[in-house]
Amino acid sequence: MKIMVLNGPNINFLGIREKTIYGVEDYEYLCNLIKTEAEESNISATILQSNIEGEIINFIQQAYHEKYDGIIINPGAYTHYSYAIYDAIKSVSIPTVEVHISNIHSRDEFRRKSVTAGACVGIIGGFGLYGYIMALNYFKQKQK
Amino acid sequence: MKIMVLNGPNINFLGIREKTIYGVEDYEYLCNLIKTEAEESNISATILQSNIEGEIINFIQQAYHEKYDGIIINPGAYTHYSYAIYDAIKSVSIPTVEVHISNIHSRDEFRRKSVTAGACVGIIGGFGLYGYIMALNYFKQKQK
Amino acid sequence: MKIMVLNGPNINFLGIREKTIYGVEDYEYLCNLIKTEAEESNISATILQSNIEGEIINFIQQAYHEKYDGIIINPGAYTHYSYAIYDAIKSVSIPTVEVHISNIHSRDEFRRKSVTAGACVGIIGGFGLYGYIMALNYFKQKQK
Amino acid sequence: MKIMVLNGPNINFLGIREKTIYGVEDYEYLCNLIKTEAEESNISATILQSNIEGEIINFIQQAYHEKYDGIIINPGAYTHYSYAIYDAIKSVSIPTVEVHISNIHSRDEFRRKSVTAGACVGIIGGFGLYGYIMALNYFKQKQK
Amino acid sequence: MKIMVLNGPNINFLGIREKTIYGVEDYEYLCNLIKTEAEESNISATILQSNIEGEIINFIQQAYHEKYDGIIINPGAYTHYSYAIYDAIKSVSIPTVEVHISNIHSRDEFRRKSVTAGACVGIIGGFGLYGYIMALNYFKQKQK
Amino acid sequence: MKIMVLNGPNINFLGIREKTIYGVEDYEYLCNLIKTEAEESNISATILQSNIEGEIINFIQQAYHEKYDGIIINPGAYTHYSYAIYDAIKSVSIPTVEVHISNIHSRDEFRRKSVTAGACVGIIGGFGLYGYIMALNYFKQKQK
Amino acid sequence: MKIMVLNGPNINFLGIREKTIYGVEDYEYLCNLIKTEAEESNISATILQSNIEGEIINFIQQAYHEKYDGIIINPGAYTHYSYAIYDAIKSVSIPTVEVHISNIHSRDEFRRKSVTAGACVGIIGGFGLYGYIMALNYFKQKQK
Amino acid sequence: MKIMVLNGPNINFLGIREKTIYGVEDYEYLCNLIKTEAEESNISATILQSNIEGEIINFIQQAYHEKYDGIIINPGAYTHYSYAIYDAIKSVSIPTVEVHISNIHSRDEFRRKSVTAGACVGIIGGFGLYGYIMALNYFKQKQK
Amino acid sequence: MKIMVLNGPNINFLGIREKTIYGVEDYEYLCNLIKTEAEESNISATILQSNIEGEIINFIQQAYHEKYDGIIINPGAYTHYSYAIYDAIKSVSIPTVEVHISNIHSRDEFRRKSVTAGACVGIIGGFGLYGYIMALNYFKQKQK
Amino acid sequence: MKIMVLNGPNINFLGIREKTIYGVEDYEYLCNLIKTEAEESNISATILQSNIEGEIINFIQQAYHEKYDGIIINPGAYTHYSYAIYDAIKSVSIPTVEVHISNIHSRDEFRRKSVTAGACVGIIGGFGLYGYIMALNYFKQKQK
Amino acid sequence: MKIMVLNGPNINFLGIREKTIYGVEDYEYLCNLIKTEAEESNISATILQSNIEGEIINFIQQAYHEKYDGIIINPGAYTHYSYAIYDAIKSVSIPTVEVHISNIHSRDEFRRKSVTAGACVGIIGGFGLYGYIMALNYFKQKQK
Amino acid sequence: MKIMVLNGPNINFLGIREKTIYGVEDYEYLCNLIKTEAEESNISATILQSNIEGEIINFIQQAYHEKYDGIIINPGAYTHYSYAIYDAIKSVSIPTVEVHISNIHSRDEFRRKSVTAGACVGIIGGFGLYGYIMALNYFKQKQK
Repeated sequence: MKIMVLNGPNINFLGIREKTIYGVEDYEYLCNLIKTEAEESNISATILQSNIEGEIINFIQQAYHEKYDGIIINPGAYTHYSYAIYDAIKSVSIPTVEVHISNIHSRDEFRRKSVTAGACVGIIGGFGLYGYIMALNYFKQKQK
Repeated sequence: MKIMVLNGPNINFLGIREKTIYGVEDYEYLCNLIKTEAEESNISATILQSNIEGEIINFIQQAYHEKYDGIIINPGAYTHYSYAIYDAIKSVSIPTVEVHISNIHSRDEFRRKSVTAGACVGIIGGFGLYGYIMALNYFKQKQK
Repeated sequence: MKIMVLNGPNINFLGIREKTIYGVEDYEYLCNLIKTEAEESNISATILQSNIEGEIINFIQQAYHEKYDGIIINPGAYTHYSYAIYDAIKSVSIPTVEVHISNIHSRDEFRRKSVTAGACVGIIGGFGLYGYIMALNYFKQKQK
Repeated sequence: MKIMVLNGPNINFLGIREKTIYGVEDYEYLCNLIKTEAEESNISATILQSNIEGEIINFIQQAYHEKYDGIIINPGAYTHYSYAIYDAIKSVSIPTVEVHISNIHSRDEFRRKSVTAGACVGIIGGFGLYGYIMALNYFKQKQK
Repeated sequence: MKIMVLNGPNINFLGIREKTIYGVEDYEYLCNLIKTEAEESNISATILQSNIEGEIINFIQQAYHEKYDGIIINPGAYTHYSYAIYDAIKSVSIPTVEVHISNIHSRDEFRRKSVTAGACVGIIGGFGLYGYIMALNYFKQKQK
Repeated sequence: MKIMVLNGPNINFLGIREKTIYGVEDYEYLCNLIKTEAEESNISATILQSNIEGEIINFIQQAYHEKYDGIIINPGAYTHYSYAIYDAIKSVSIPTVEVHISNIHSRDEFRRKSVTAGACVGIIGGFGLYGYIMALNYFKQKQK
Repeated sequence: MKIMVLNGPNINFLGIREKTIYGVEDYEYLCNLIKTEAEESNISATILQSNIEGEIINFIQQAYHEKYDGIIINPGAYTHYSYAIYDAIKSVSIPTVEVHISNIHSRDEFRRKSVTAGACVGIIGGFGLYGYIMALNYFKQKQK
Repeated sequence: MKIMVLNGPNINFLGIREKTIYGVEDYEYLCNLIKTEAEESNISATILQSNIEGEIINFIQQAYHEKYDGIIINPGAYTHYSYAIYDAIKSVSIPTVEVHISNIHSRDEFRRKSVTAGACVGIIGGFGLYGYIMALNYFKQKQK
Repeated sequence: MKIMVLNGPNINFLGIREKTIYGVEDYEYLCNLIKTEAEESNISATILQSNIEGEIINFIQQAYHEKYDGIIINPGAYTHYSYAIYDAIKSVSIPTVEVHISNIHSRDEFRRKSVTAGACVGIIGGFGLYGYIMALNYFKQKQK
Repeated sequence: MKIMVLNGPNINFLGIREKTIYGVEDYEYLCNLIKTEAEESNISATILQSNIEGEIINFIQQAYHEKYDGIIINPGAYTHYSYAIYDAIKSVSIPTVEVHISNIHSRDEFRRKSVTAGACVGIIGGFGLYGYIMALNYFKQKQK
Repeated sequence: MKIMVLNGPNINFLGIREKTIYGVEDYEYLCNLIKTEAEESNISATILQSNIEGEIINFIQQAYHEKYDGIIINPGAYTHYSYAIYDAIKSVSIPTVEVHISNIHSRDEFRRKSVTAGACVGIIGGFGLYGYIMALNYFKQKQK
Repeated sequence: MKIMVLNGPNINFLGIREKTIYGVEDYEYLCNLIKTEAEESNISATILQSNIEGEIINFIQQAYHEKYDGIIINPGAYTHYSYAIYDAIKSVSIPTVEVHISNIHSRDEFRRKSVTAGACVGIIGGFGLYGYIMALNYFKQKQK
């Protein structure tokens, strides 16, 4: 099973960025967490990050060409206005899970709406870095 | 670890209600699924259902008096307007996870907004009945 | 043919409540009117009333279990915001007719929108108590 | 008893127009249905149709001059924006019943609001062609 | 000086229509009032009325072809939504004065906005039938 | 003089619920405060509480049947959307005073609008538990 | 007949202020125009101007105390948001005519709404300085 | 204890202004009522009135300089849009109570929102002139 | 191949109407342009114009009865609010192309929305009179 | 004549992406179609695609530096929110035609508004791949 | 060079008013800061303050009569709704710079919109008292 | 002192782009202006430009890694919708000043809102290229 983990803008600034919201662990920590969990679950996970909206679309299209079984995406702030990412997820037929580290429903008004989630299987938000594990587990159990 | 699983209006009609959205398994199936998973995880799970907004609030208050460690709530349609449930979750200090069977972001406009999620730890939606397992797992790993 | 007639909040205050809008006849008068008409049409009509949103949902679910052929519902003020009742009607597959005693389009702004009607066969409003007869007649002629 | 039945734009295309919504019977069938029912009820019914907003107003004014006892109107799409028809119904003092073949509450957003209904006695919608019979019956029983 | 006086839908029902708002004088009275005043002012006034939006546009185009010096228009309810009449006034280069019998700012919300006035020289509203005289006087004094 | 004091959802959690907003005194303290004040003023006060919207309506209807002279109501979160309670207060003819412990105008946006206050004599908010005393005093002085 | 002519903010800058909109004549010219016309019509006209919202209210109240027969008001930009002036006009019982020099319907969006006009007899706008003469004439003819 | 009572625009027209809403007693009556009550309660009350928004701000600033213990304010129509008064109350640290004679929740839509209340301790509305007494009593009991 | 070219309100005033927007060529020029192009393409084109909304619907229905292969429509200002024309196009099954002479996206806000385009194959706007040729070419190439 | 054809996000997934909306032909097919047509018309066409908003702006600026005579742009989902692309088109003075494969007016609400079209000559939408040919033809005929 | 520095409501409460937002320095300090800077730059600066909307307009008009070369204005809360001040700035032809001490974009929603800035040369906000110096420097460098 | 000057989309087209709004000087001129001023102030200024939203985020993150003391950003059209840039500025702790060449408050409606300014120290707009100097001066004086 091949899973692409796709992190959007500013996620690479974990541990630097507003720590009361996003926690103290840094981006490397997150990558290791995902890799360890994936290995234990016999999942081949590729982790990618970009601040550029269109590059995220490029990665989604790459997932199509390289026949990934699933995408875990945290579109960062693009969640709230990127119809282009929404279209990209729609245009490939790969089950996609949207993950947010913080609870987008208890923060700024503009963060309460997800434009991209409508193209996904589902959404997981508010559980910190553990949300990525939940998404991996979802793909693992589906496999059974 | 004591977890209350709280299902709102019409959830007890699983398997009867719009099957293309909510699946063919019935409510009993869901209850057994949760119980089995909870037992395996050494979690004591109490499953409750009510169609009455105020009764759901009563259950949340009961969770407070009986010192539950967590609540898993699927508020059904109350998700979208019940500030009373929002207040109830806020007023007890029990970590609460909101679960939806369907992906609320790819359905009617009025379902895209969660009024109750703001009072919760986080939200899980779109993974079918498995969402309840994800919520249980969240509590289990937190315990460690 | 088995029809459930379901009256929502404050309908039991007919004859007491704003008479220039709802008329001088009381709730008992309405019940007798429906019963007489139903008998003449060989319809078995059960008339229920509740001020409690969730109890109305209970009744709708009961209609499902007891295999009613139709529901006539006047959801009172819940008409304008109860997505929970909307969901309940959607979840059973019983043809439902929404009735209003007054013309909701010539009153307060908030009464001009029906949230529940979208789940119904149709809507009848503004014809006073006679609206219930119209709804019964609809079921009678459909039977032919 | 003299009743004017007034059909607005595109109603004459019944049986041609989106059949899953408006049914397979054509406009002639509707006219005969109304005439037969009216005759049985000793009502003199005049059936008129126009695609032109102002011509519908002309007909309403004609109803005033020719002393009709009631109007049954299906304003078609004008329902949703014709304040001019609203004013016309208001300016004559003839009881008017608004009929819709489909349930305007379960279709496009713009169809959920009726601008003209506020000037009518009441509204009947969603019962197919039978809605016209319901309107005739309303006038018949009022006569008693 | 040639002035066209153009009355929109339901204005011909003056004296019949809601008298507390529009007064007791009928449409003939209004026509005579205008004619008398026009004659005294040496203005040649043509008075036209139509309930049909497009016919009003026809009249405006006729005013262009017949070289009228001014138009006095009361677009009735079309005031609030007819961008087509707005366009018609814009497309001829004849100074146009919008008149309303009642004060549109102290009635229903939907009457508080004029879509057509933006294409006119100005607007006069709330002065009853005298508003037409004010409009005639405006053209008379401009002539000097 | 008979006064019904009606407390809505979560009010019974005074002293437990967000103390910085609602204060440290508990619900029993509030009840005693009201009872003492009422006795001193020769008012017979009945204090009721429910989390269920429909039950609050039942109490209002009970106040009608048992001929209460006034109602003091704190509808909790129902304040902001319960047209059903609004209708209930309208349908009985008992003067009703709405009380809020906190200042609803300096909190969340959704709390700034009261749907129920429109059916009441007036509103008192922001004065803590003392607001109930103010309401009692209002009834007392009216009696004189 | 005693008429108060009340000019709001920036009207005293006529001839200085955006001349393509308001014309080249200055405020003194306007005052003389009004005075001359008033004298010819045997109307005693008092012309007042203030940039201060509350002072305009003071003038309206003065009109009440000094028993004026009418007010002609050009509230300038206060037209679009001063509910306080609206209330002031409502609170005295003096017929008031609102005048605008420019056509508020063909300018900025925010100018298309009049908050104050709802309390007036009527509104005149777009006829330049002549609008004041129209208002005076309205009072003169009413006197007859 | 020093209390400033601050009345906004048109309050001085009590007894003149729409009597069905504000009652028949005039402004002098209100002042005497407040003074008598204040004296009995050993409160030194200064009563001020202004129609001018900025003057009300001046009074609030004066209250700061002269060390008042509380402000009772009825901002009249400024209630609904004056962020400047809101800022002024915020900028001094004097507990302020907002009073309205009528029930702002059962009148025009624009009166249902209070912009200034967010800066106050609380709001009292709908109890007629007695609302001022309630506000005084609030300060009196706080003193104990 | 039979194509109906349908021009809405004010299109017949080409060359007279705001020339900087619509160009200097008149309506006759447009008709000749279309005829010449159609002939060259072996298309039988019927050109119709009406200022009346309902007459445009009549023409659309005529296209159905006379078995036209396509409609080219420029609904003028009706584009922005005529749900009745939208319904008419929907009710016949003739491919329809919407043409605008000017670019509706770079003009007034109200022109940026097309209500009728949703029922059409597509939309062409901003290319002046050449837009009609584009529409004809579309039908010609489809034929191949 | 030099034309730049600029395709935005996900257009390169033609033939993969939602085929019922965008058709079965793939991106290569589209490129060949354009090239063939361009050659026949003696137009030198450069076809570019990017998923990245800013890269599209880079291409537009390149068109300026390399003196292109026209741009044909399909901004994909950026159509609906990219004011940056709007600005880019505005800042170069090259006539630009916006093309959409599907009819944006008969799909999701968010697709009905074009932010970029206001900076273009015109818009063509709903004619499938043929829309690009229409745009080329527009440039060809303009050349004559 | 003559510059008028105009401060709106509550600015004179600097050092008293919410210090975390506006800083600890008082109004006198600000005045001295401006005077010192102006003198060094050979600018004659007049500093004025008023809480009254109309008085600020008076000052702007005074600037016109006394031929000021520039205005620096901090309209306080009037920034967000005073179309009258907007008009005043427009009506004089003096370059005006809007200054805010705090960053209006990171505070309450209602503070994010400036109604008055549209009539100014530009806006400076968020730099504390130094913003006034920036405005002075702007005028100084323009002089060169 | 190290300052990064960050220019967003289309700023590099200064002197080409709408000159009446942005002036005739080109981008090179702007760069030289900034460099000269910076040198005189002993500030080390790095000037960067990108049309790509995500690249701008990359630069902001680079500023963090390379320990810049301040950022001067002109986000161009991204100002109005880039929550991703907003998040990036928030996530680094470098004081940032937003600069606009034109006055965004006197142009299109969509330009009146700044999404990014909320994360900045302050905003400077409308002063042409001089705005960059003002921003540099702000950093210079802070240093003292």
